[in-house]
Amino acid sequence: MGNSLLIKNATVITIDADNGIFTGDVLIVDGRIAAFDKATEADEILDASGRVLLPGFVQTHIHLCQTLFRGAADDLALIDWLKQRIWPLEAAHTAESLRLSAQLGIAELIRGGTTCALTMETVNHTDEVFRVVEESGFRATVGKCLMDAGADVPEALQEKTDASLAEAVRLIEHWHGAANGRIQACFAPRFAVSCTRELLEQVARLSRERRVLVHTHASENRDEIALVEQNTGLRNISYLQAVGLTAPHVVLAHCIWLDENEMTILQQTETKVAHCPSSNLKLGSGIAPINEMLERGISVSLGADGAPCNNRLDQFIEMRTATLLQKVRCGPQAVPALTALRMATIEGAKALGLSDEIGSIEIGKKADLILLNLNQLHSSPQPDLVSTIVYSAQASDVETVLIDGQIVMRDRHLQTLNEADIIARTQTLL
Amino acid sequence: MGNSLLIKNATVITIDADNGIFTGDVLIVDGRIAAFDKATEADEILDASGRVLLPGFVQTHIHLCQTLFRGAADDLALIDWLKQRIWPLEAAHTAESLRLSAQLGIAELIRGGTTCALTMETVNHTDEVFRVVEESGFRATVGKCLMDAGADVPEALQEKTDASLAEAVRLIEHWHGAANGRIQACFAPRFAVSCTRELLEQVARLSRERRVLVHTHASENRDEIALVEQNTGLRNISYLQAVGLTAPHVVLAHCIWLDENEMTILQQTETKVAHCPSSNLKLGSGIAPINEMLERGISVSLGADGAPCNNRLDQFIEMRTATLLQKVRCGPQAVPALTALRMATIEGAKALGLSDEIGSIEIGKKADLILLNLNQLHSSPQPDLVSTIVYSAQASDVETVLIDGQIVMRDRHLQTLNEADIIARTQTLL
Repeated sequence: MGNSLLIKNATVITIDADNGIFTGDVLIVDGRIAAFDKATEADEILDASGRVLLPGFVQTHIHLCQTLFRGAADDLALIDWLKQRIWPLEAAHTAESLRLSAQLGIAELIRGGTTCALTMETVNHTDEVFRVVEESGFRATVGKCLMDAGADVPEALQEKTDASLAEAVRLIEHWHGAANGRIQACFAPRFAVSCTRELLEQVARLSRERRVLVHTHASENRDEIALVEQNTGLRNISYLQAVGLTAPHVVLAHCIWLDENEMTILQQTETKVAHCPSSNLKLGSGIAPINEMLERGISVSLGADGAPCNNRLDQFIEMRTATLLQKVRCGPQAVPALTALRMATIEGAKALGLSDEIGSIEIGKKADLILLNLNQLHSSPQPDLVSTIVYSAQASDVETVLIDGQIVMRDRHLQTLNEADIIARTQTLL
Repeated sequence: MGNSLLIKNATVITIDADNGIFTGDVLIVDGRIAAFDKATEADEILDASGRVLLPGFVQTHIHLCQTLFRGAADDLALIDWLKQRIWPLEAAHTAESLRLSAQLGIAELIRGGTTCALTMETVNHTDEVFRVVEESGFRATVGKCLMDAGADVPEALQEKTDASLAEAVRLIEHWHGAANGRIQACFAPRFAVSCTRELLEQVARLSRERRVLVHTHASENRDEIALVEQNTGLRNISYLQAVGLTAPHVVLAHCIWLDENEMTILQQTETKVAHCPSSNLKLGSGIAPINEMLERGISVSLGADGAPCNNRLDQFIEMRTATLLQKVRCGPQAVPALTALRMATIEGAKALGLSDEIGSIEIGKKADLILLNLNQLHSSPQPDLVSTIVYSAQASDVETVLIDGQIVMRDRHLQTLNEADIIARTQTLL
C-alpha cells in the first residue's frame, strides 16, 4: 500500500449516479479514493465526525489574472468594463503582479472549497499562472487569452494571429498534463469580437489535433451579440458553429442571449455551458435560460468569472444564486438544490473532460475532497442536508480541503499558500 | 462620566448625511456615542486597529418564529408554502419551541452584524419572543401576527377579530419601550388575505392612537394580489389605503407587483417598503422595482424574511442581492454599493421610526455598532471600502457587535446567547 489517508466517520455526499449519501470512512491511497470499508490503518487518520465530505467544487469560468482588480471596475456593462478597466489593467500586468493575482485567486478558491477551475488568463506571462497552480497544489485547466482583433485594445494585448496561436501551442506543449495531471492547458480565444475568423478556425483545428479544451465567452451581452452579427452576419452561436467551435470539448461561458436554434446547436453538439450568475447580474448582462438548457440535457456548470465582476470567487454563492434566479424565472420548483450541487461539482468535471477523475466521491477517482463543518447557527436545523449546503452554507464553513490527495487546507489553515503574506502584498499595490 | 467604552483606531463608516469615513476613536458613554475626539480614558478600551466600524444592520422584515423551519419548506410558491408548511408549523409551536426559534434567529442575526429587526411573529406565545429579545440584548420591534380571515388556516392560528386585537394591545402595553427602549411592540396583521376589513381598520386606528408601527406583507405574489382584488375589488395597495394603512408608520414587506398608481400612493403617503430580495427569488415571487422606488424617493430597507424562504438571515447577502438584481433589471449603474449600504442601515432605522437613535454613527445616537475584519482573501484588495462591504464581505467577517452600548459578540463569541447549546437543541427537534 502506498501513501494513505483515512477520513473517518464523515457524512459523505457522493454525487454519484444515485446521489448516494452515507456516514462512514473513506480511504485514500496514492491520491485516489481506494475504499469505503472500515479501515483501521493508514499513514494518516483524519477524524471527520460531525463533518460533511463533498467532492471539491469545480468552477468552469475563472480569470485568475483579474483577481487583483477586485472592486476596481464596479457598475459598468461588459464592453465599457473591458475597454475602460479590465483591458488596461490586464495590459499593465507584470509577471510579478500576475503571480500575486493568481495566488490571491487560488487561495480564495481553496478556502471556499473549490478544488479545480477552468481559467482564462491574459495575453502575456501565462507561465506564471501555471507555476502558481503547480506550487499551490490546485487543479486547473489554464488557457492563455487569444485576441488578434477588435477595437480599443491596449497595445500590450494586441496579437498577431500566428504568434498568438504559437504561444498557446507552446504553453500546451510545456504544461499540459504536468504535476501528475493536475495541470491541463487549453485554448482560450477571448470572444468572437476579439478574434479573427482565421484564429477561431485554427483553434478549432488545433484543439482537435491536440485533444485539448477550448474555453471562450459567448452571448453574454446584447451589445456583444449585435457586434458579432454585424461583423459576421450570424448569431453568435451559429458563427461559432460555422468556425468549428461547437463540440463536446468546447466550454462557452455565459450563453445568456440564445435563440431556439442556438439552444438546439448547443444541445446537438454537446457543447458545454459555464453559467456565471453573479457576474451576469453585476454587469447587467441578463439571466441565462438555465432551466430550459437543463430540460434539453445541456451540461451546465458554474463559475464566478473574474473577481471584478462578482466580486467573489465563491461557489456557494454561485450555487445559491443559480437556483434562486431560475426560481424567479420559472417558478419555485426550478433547479432544486441537488441539481445546483451537481452543477457545482460533477457537471464541472464533465465540462473539463475530467468526469472519470473528479467531480464525485467514487472508488478510483482522485481525492479532490472538502470537509464542511455545518454545525453552525446559519445551517441549523438541517432537515435536508443538500438544501443546507446549497441554500444555507457559506465559504467559511469549509474546514479542510484535499486536492489530488494532498491536504491544501487543514482546519481552515492554507498549507501551500501564505495567506497573510498574500493579503499584505495586495495592499501594497494600491 | 457614566459607563464608558472607547473604540480606538477604527476605520469608521458613519452613514451620516455626508457618508463620512474617517479613521479614529469613538467614545461611548452610557450606551450612546459621546465623542469622536482622541480620548485616553474609559472603563474599557477596544483596540479596533485595522478594523472597520459600521452602524449595525437593521432588517425590516424577519419572522423569528420561523427560524426553526429552515430547510423545511423549499421549492414552494407563497400560497402553498404558507398552507402546506408554514401555517401548520406555526400552529404546532409551543412556548418552548418558539423560544428556541427566536434564540436561533437572534443568534444568527447578531453573528452576521444585524443589531435590530422588525419581526412578525406567529399568532400565539409572542411574550416568549419579547423575552428572548430582552435577554439577548437584541433590539427589535416585535408584532404578534393578526389573522382573523382566510381559507385553510389551522385551528390554532384562527382568531376572532376582537381577541386578536386585544392580545396585540396587551403586548404593546406590556412590552413597548421595555429594556431601555430596546424593545418596541407593533401591530402585525399578516396580509390582506388573512385579515377582515374590520381588523385592518382597527389596526389603522389603534396604531395612530398608540403611536406604534404597523408591519404587514403586501403585493408579494401574483396569486395574492388576484385574491385581494377578487375579495375587495381593489389593487392591494389601494385597498390598504382605503382601510387607512398607508402612512409613514406602516412598513410593507415585498411590494413586488405594483402599478404606477400604487407606487404613487406609497410615495405620497411616505409608506415604508421592506425589500426581501432572496425570499422573493426563492419563492418565485418576482423582482421588486426597487430602482424605480428609489428614484421616487420611497424609503426602501432590507430584510431576510423568515429562514424557510431564504434560507439565511444575513444582511450581507440581502445587500448584495438587492443591488445585483436591480443591475440586471435596469443596468449596471443601478443601486450602487453606497445606496445598498444605506438601505441596510439608516433606511431600516427610518422605517422603524428610530433614525434619531440608530442607523448611523453620529454623536448622541445609540451605540449599535459592528466591527468587521476585512483583512481577508475574499476582500482583498480594497480600492473602495464600501464596494468591499457590499460586494465582497460576508457574515463571518463580523468580529464584534454592540447593541445599546453592550458588547453582545466579542471576537466572534456571542456573549448573551449560548451558541453551542442553541445548535444542539435544534438538532434534537428533528
